[in-house]
Amino acid sequence: MQSLGRHALLDLHGCDPELLKDTRFLQDLFKQTAVDLSCTVIEEVFHTFSPYGVSGVVVIAESHLAIHTWPEHGYAAVDLFTCNETTELARLAEILKQRMGASEIRYREEARGVLPPPRQIAAV
Amino acid sequence: MQSLGRHALLDLHGCDPELLKDTRFLQDLFKQTAVDLSCTVIEEVFHTFSPYGVSGVVVIAESHLAIHTWPEHGYAAVDLFTCNETTELARLAEILKQRMGASEIRYREEARGVLPPPRQIAAV
Repeated sequence: MQSLGRHALLDLHGCDPELLKDTRFLQDLFKQTAVDLSCTVIEEVFHTFSPYGVSGVVVIAESHLAIHTWPEHGYAAVDLFTCNETTELARLAEILKQRMGASEIRYREEARGVLPPPRQIAAV
Repeated sequence: MQSLGRHALLDLHGCDPELLKDTRFLQDLFKQTAVDLSCTVIEEVFHTFSPYGVSGVVVIAESHLAIHTWPEHGYAAVDLFTCNETTELARLAEILKQRMGASEIRYREEARGVLPPPRQIAAV
């Protein structure tokens, strides 16, 4: 079965709370991470919540890379949706674990847009 | 176990291809859908691809609502991440099925940011 995209969901626990409050750091990190994964950045939106917490989305030609942070729990939710078959999703977890100081990562990958299998053509 | 958010992934097949190319329609629909689900819209980014296809993200106070379309396959990938326990995720599928003419929807819901259970306190 063919799928049009892959959607990686990452739960990062035990992150440095100060980094999870730092919108500038996260914006730079996520733009650079998209580039490092050979994604094409189109536009990004980052928002800082009061009293703390950041939501950010990098819209990429391949779909999107998003983060939402809960500094009070040392937690960040990240998802990367890509329609590029060659994007190395495993690298995303490696990069973020290192840069955000996560002690524990939960990773899931979902196939998106699974197309019905082609009609079987009977051998003549 | 407590989770900080819920992430709904919707695969909409059999949609009207013309609607999947119509950035203005999708931008209006997704902003209104966020409001209808009692989400607070912060900002949105919608991008039209050449020759067709749309990516859009509505950043909400509760996290994000995103869509990516493949008009040539009548397919749209939607995800809604919310930290609001009362958001009626099932309504999202109902609204989009009706407004986008989808003939088939695949729906999944993932708990995000599951916190370790509290330490057990032994009864004295």
